[in-house]
Amino acid sequence: MKLSALATELGLEYTGADIDITGVNTLDKAGNGELSFLVNPKYQHLLETTKAGCVLTSGPYADKVQCALISDNIYMDLAKVVNLFARPQGCLSGISELAYVHPDALVDDSATVYPFAFIGEGAVVGPGTVVFAGAYVGEKTHVGAQCILYPNCVVMGGLHLGDNIILQPGAVIGGDGYGYAQTPVGHMKIPQIGTVEIENDVEVGSNTAIDRAALDTTRIKRGTKIDNLVQIGHNVEIGEHCLVIGQVGIGGSTIVGNGVVLAGQVGVADNAKIGDGVMVGAQSGVAGSIEPGSKVAGTPAMKAGTFLKAASVCMPKLPDLFKRVKKLEKKLASFTEQAAGGDSNE
Amino acid sequence: MKLSALATELGLEYTGADIDITGVNTLDKAGNGELSFLVNPKYQHLLETTKAGCVLTSGPYADKVQCALISDNIYMDLAKVVNLFARPQGCLSGISELAYVHPDALVDDSATVYPFAFIGEGAVVGPGTVVFAGAYVGEKTHVGAQCILYPNCVVMGGLHLGDNIILQPGAVIGGDGYGYAQTPVGHMKIPQIGTVEIENDVEVGSNTAIDRAALDTTRIKRGTKIDNLVQIGHNVEIGEHCLVIGQVGIGGSTIVGNGVVLAGQVGVADNAKIGDGVMVGAQSGVAGSIEPGSKVAGTPAMKAGTFLKAASVCMPKLPDLFKRVKKLEKKLASFTEQAAGGDSNE
Amino acid sequence: MKLSALATELGLEYTGADIDITGVNTLDKAGNGELSFLVNPKYQHLLETTKAGCVLTSGPYADKVQCALISDNIYMDLAKVVNLFARPQGCLSGISELAYVHPDALVDDSATVYPFAFIGEGAVVGPGTVVFAGAYVGEKTHVGAQCILYPNCVVMGGLHLGDNIILQPGAVIGGDGYGYAQTPVGHMKIPQIGTVEIENDVEVGSNTAIDRAALDTTRIKRGTKIDNLVQIGHNVEIGEHCLVIGQVGIGGSTIVGNGVVLAGQVGVADNAKIGDGVMVGAQSGVAGSIEPGSKVAGTPAMKAGTFLKAASVCMPKLPDLFKRVKKLEKKLASFTEQAAGGDSNE
Repeated sequence: MKLSALATELGLEYTGADIDITGVNTLDKAGNGELSFLVNPKYQHLLETTKAGCVLTSGPYADKVQCALISDNIYMDLAKVVNLFARPQGCLSGISELAYVHPDALVDDSATVYPFAFIGEGAVVGPGTVVFAGAYVGEKTHVGAQCILYPNCVVMGGLHLGDNIILQPGAVIGGDGYGYAQTPVGHMKIPQIGTVEIENDVEVGSNTAIDRAALDTTRIKRGTKIDNLVQIGHNVEIGEHCLVIGQVGIGGSTIVGNGVVLAGQVGVADNAKIGDGVMVGAQSGVAGSIEPGSKVAGTPAMKAGTFLKAASVCMPKLPDLFKRVKKLEKKLASFTEQAAGGDSNE
Repeated sequence: MKLSALATELGLEYTGADIDITGVNTLDKAGNGELSFLVNPKYQHLLETTKAGCVLTSGPYADKVQCALISDNIYMDLAKVVNLFARPQGCLSGISELAYVHPDALVDDSATVYPFAFIGEGAVVGPGTVVFAGAYVGEKTHVGAQCILYPNCVVMGGLHLGDNIILQPGAVIGGDGYGYAQTPVGHMKIPQIGTVEIENDVEVGSNTAIDRAALDTTRIKRGTKIDNLVQIGHNVEIGEHCLVIGQVGIGGSTIVGNGVVLAGQVGVADNAKIGDGVMVGAQSGVAGSIEPGSKVAGTPAMKAGTFLKAASVCMPKLPDLFKRVKKLEKKLASFTEQAAGGDSNE
Repeated sequence: MKLSALATELGLEYTGADIDITGVNTLDKAGNGELSFLVNPKYQHLLETTKAGCVLTSGPYADKVQCALISDNIYMDLAKVVNLFARPQGCLSGISELAYVHPDALVDDSATVYPFAFIGEGAVVGPGTVVFAGAYVGEKTHVGAQCILYPNCVVMGGLHLGDNIILQPGAVIGGDGYGYAQTPVGHMKIPQIGTVEIENDVEVGSNTAIDRAALDTTRIKRGTKIDNLVQIGHNVEIGEHCLVIGQVGIGGSTIVGNGVVLAGQVGVADNAKIGDGVMVGAQSGVAGSIEPGSKVAGTPAMKAGTFLKAASVCMPKLPDLFKRVKKLEKKLASFTEQAAGGDSNE
């Protein structure tokens, strides 16, 4: 693809010759037919050695290379460029005769269903959606248009998935929530008869689990991106455009606002409430209510700035602090004794 | 179902008219043909606005609604009611011709085996058990009666599962334990030739992994409920009626007593010993031996009360404490100097 | 197998009679035809009660039993012995007619492919490799010789796996990395068009997820052993012979050196750099750069010794320390007052 065509496609200006662009790669690895990119100034020294034919970057760095594609939102334009060169995963199309499609399921003619995929009674699979091998779509579950259900992901029965949803391999949607009644003879299962609704443009990572509600609905709102190995309990509601990073766990009935970022391995207790725009630092433990817009960290979570000081500055000096206090106590004691001694001497 | 019939079925009293109950829902969402429930006094204000036809609750709240089903163990009775209205997942019965059942496997006539399920040589699948699509039952593995193996769960060869066991989607039982011998040329795998035994009434969450023992047995005792994405190492033994919440990790050869609660994301080291009735707070790290009945939290775990004070009260004030100690030191130093100065003046 | 033959096979000396060895078991459980082993002196009292026919142990303990197999590297020799008695998992061989093998895939004649396994277009499956039921090998992916792909593991398209690699059930290799561009209308997916390379002798645990790179390569070097439920982000590079224990999470583009040990539930931030031979304590949180050979722990990680003191000695006493400091402040204040009072009295 000609650089000029690419620039037009993206609505960007370019400098240098109108070369042929054959792919996208990192500054390190790109060859002279490839486009690369620079976002972080930290890596600008790579501009001197890169063999990339052209570099997607912002104005200030465009002069440093012979050929630049100039962008105000490099990551967004990178996403668009990569999209032009990306080949989707998979090697089949159409509905395989080796799949199981229930006679009462409704699979759109434009959908792809791989061998060993299972589509249950009354399930709907929308236009352009791809169901890979070993994926399971339960009875009466609705999967919208242009979704990708990667191999061995599971969408249990009675759920509703919107459009443009991606489920990475092994993701499980609608497994039972963790609900038991205590009885004298042990924990009695409370059947989980609720559902899960996933809105448009949501992505769910590999081997992540999103439980169905006990009675009503576990809901993931549009545009939210969930990473791998995340656990989302029953009745949870996650707002729009959130980022939920790897191995986060969210307890039952918790409500997460819009635009929230939960960093890796964060744990959120059940029945918590996280306001819009909250950012929670990695490995933190959150319970109760978090004010919109706040940045918190630690277990239990406190203001991120406070945690940073307490944990990274103070904690390592804590053993020393104990010594200092002991010294103070001794000093003060001997002082008091002296004073007392002085008194008694008088 | 008539409310009177429901009350008889559960052995409970009811107040109000003998209406038809068509389902169960939350106070918020229930319609006038539905039963709802109230456990937590915090939500009692919802009694004023709910449209529920009847509310399952305890005596003190029964007067606040026109129609109540009165219970001493609301969650237990809720479990029973929901059970009456619940429709099990799935849309097939019988043994599918699209499944693979080894000629030497023994699948009970009353069992259900979905397409693309795999039942290995010499495996046993008991009466009423349902093996969903993509589930794997390895050679010589015994799966008892009335079990549910949800889609894509894996039960490797040579294991023993009792009755009434539920494996949520993607659960893996009997993968190899993590055992290697260090050698001059790297880590040599110690083949894991032990087994896993899961007793009756155990439930295992989505994408949870329970490793087979190195030589003998990893054991999960009856009635224990394991949540999603939990990791249980080789040779671990978990007692009866434990609750193991999401993303807990338990190291090899650890012994967990009866009635233990491990909250979300807890880590237990290998070779630890956790006494009966212990409760471990979320995200805590446990090693060594924990006394029966104790409540612990933190990493490494300490008494839960101590941790709560130390982590939630003291930690945020730690930077300030350092300042206070510094101030004390200065004050005392100037004091000492004055004193010394005074002395020298004499 | 005769003990003498076993000793010859392993190149070890033995004491006692040349009995028949029929299997391997723990000191507790072994019968008189079985070999057991003792590594940890803590368990030497079991030598008095064991019924094991022979004990694999080091010189000092050999005298304490009637029959010993004497080793300098007991775990290594145990691995070898167990290997002799181990029966590999599985009950089929050859390429099942119930598998899907793309006409343009290249599966070696000596490989085994189970029912419902999927081998994509242009994929290669090497000699002796076993692909269990429900496993997925994507298009153009190369799987080397003598690998085991356990049930329902997923290897997406365009990846390269070397020889002697084991993927435990449900492991996912090459799911999309977590990469999005922020735009005014939400997070736009950056297609992940890179790959994953796994070198020889690597093992990957149950339900672990290793993401494909954004543009270039996520790489796991030879001999590294990864436990269950581990998350490895895109573009990560893990060195040779590392041990990555259960539920560890590693953020994107992080580089881990050779011989590194990451204990259970450790989190490593993205773009971190962990030197050769580093050991990170369980549940720790690592960011930035860690010097080769260091032992760190805590969140954020500090020297392991410091963390141990700070967290296990100091933390529980922290509430008390606050009281002590308060007392000091009061004492010093009253002292100052007295001094001031004394002055004013003069």
